[in-house]
Amino acid sequence: MKAVVNVFLKEGVLDPQGKATHHALESLGFSGIDSVRIGKQIVIALNSSDQAEAKRSVEQMCETLLANTVIEEYSVEIVE
Amino acid sequence: MKAVVNVFLKEGVLDPQGKATHHALESLGFSGIDSVRIGKQIVIALNSSDQAEAKRSVEQMCETLLANTVIEEYSVEIVE
Repeated sequence: MKAVVNVFLKEGVLDPQGKATHHALESLGFSGIDSVRIGKQIVIALNSSDQAEAKRSVEQMCETLLANTVIEEYSVEIVE
Repeated sequence: MKAVVNVFLKEGVLDPQGKATHHALESLGFSGIDSVRIGKQIVIALNSSDQAEAKRSVEQMCETLLANTVIEEYSVEIVE
């Protein structure tokens, strides 16, 4: 079973990495870009057969380690 | 229109960030984890109405700037 976790800065929190990428893309000649935001995608392979239990466990991982919930929000999706 | 780009290290390329996270999760008491891989998710807001054209443009951005195609692979998905 695989869990896909997306961690993004919350709306309103400045994203300097995204801003820098936006400027870099524009200076390379790409136009029509409104905004760029950059987050992390974490793929965790789990040896568990209980989907609900796996989701709960991964959410616990996010709260403890994977996301800084003061400035970041996360979503967990169980695939396969 | 939004483009979601996922950039991951290719299979077989060592992922030290993922390894470190795996160890950290285990030392926090989480068990049953087979592997952890960490990539980037880049969300680009575009003011374009042509979906095919947008996808082509974002793929070009990946090749030029967003991904290091020697060691990374990417996927582009157009949403909304």
